Amino acid sequence: MIILGIDPGIAIVGWGVIEYKGNRFRTLGYGSIQTPKTRTTSERLADIYDALSEIIDRYRPEQIAVEELFWNTNVTTGIRVAEARGVILLCAQQKGLVMQEYTPMQVKQAVVGYGKAEKKQVIAMVTMMLGLPKPPKPDDTADALAIAVCHAHSAGSALAQYYNKP
Amino acid sequence: MIILGIDPGIAIVGWGVIEYKGNRFRTLGYGSIQTPKTRTTSERLADIYDALSEIIDRYRPEQIAVEELFWNTNVTTGIRVAEARGVILLCAQQKGLVMQEYTPMQVKQAVVGYGKAEKKQVIAMVTMMLGLPKPPKPDDTADALAIAVCHAHSAGSALAQYYNKP
Repeated sequence: MIILGIDPGIAIVGWGVIEYKGNRFRTLGYGSIQTPKTRTTSERLADIYDALSEIIDRYRPEQIAVEELFWNTNVTTGIRVAEARGVILLCAQQKGLVMQEYTPMQVKQAVVGYGKAEKKQVIAMVTMMLGLPKPPKPDDTADALAIAVCHAHSAGSALAQYYNKP
Repeated sequence: MIILGIDPGIAIVGWGVIEYKGNRFRTLGYGSIQTPKTRTTSERLADIYDALSEIIDRYRPEQIAVEELFWNTNVTTGIRVAEARGVILLCAQQKGLVMQEYTPMQVKQAVVGYGKAEKKQVIAMVTMMLGLPKPPKPDDTADALAIAVCHAHSAGSALAQYYNKP
């Protein structure tokens, strides 16, 4: 199963693609889509759409896991992130990907085993689990990989349950 | 100048297309894109994108006016509306439309002359200004036409100022 993890944003969209097979991870690619402040919101949304389309075409993931919005930041930022998230969901839908959303707490729980873990711990754990040479930068990229790992665990156990059905 | 007004939403997107020429309005079309609750968010976003693309191709507006988000409703609804708004902005950008945003208060001010006017007044005024046989339904459609009228006034006066320059 090839999974694309996404940490949505308007300035930075973190992304990471992993393969999960026989309880093992293989990292296929990761990075971030960055849009400059000098562009209009509409232009930035189109940049995100185009870049994400390319990533999906390159790695051909079957599933996409996206972080759910969390309203602890300011409202204007929240609106912009939600707009970007809409474009990301649209792109995934048009490409026929199966979509799943996770809260930051679910991601932390899946990766570190503790829903209130610090960001640093999550990044360190993801770096180790995926055998990366060093922590991916910016943090949004590491977060995206964490979301993909979270989905692998969650979808993996759902699959296991399915096969273990009497 | 052909203007597409949009009242964004995930369940209902109101839309209205007007032509504004020599201080006169002509209504070219209006309606609403509605997406059923039985579809996933991603599917609904794709439905909105497809329907809006068709509307733009049909009426070929040069400009699009979209209502800015207003956070007096609940947060979850707000996120969904912002996601839909992202898809709408993307579509407009891809079609090369000039985009402008207006707050509900600006729209009321432009249509009724009073920023705190009631929705009923706005709908009655738009119906009269555009010479419609009866108030468009649902209200989101009337709102979309009001946004288009607001933009016509605002862009019209900008144009007038431009031509009156010494």
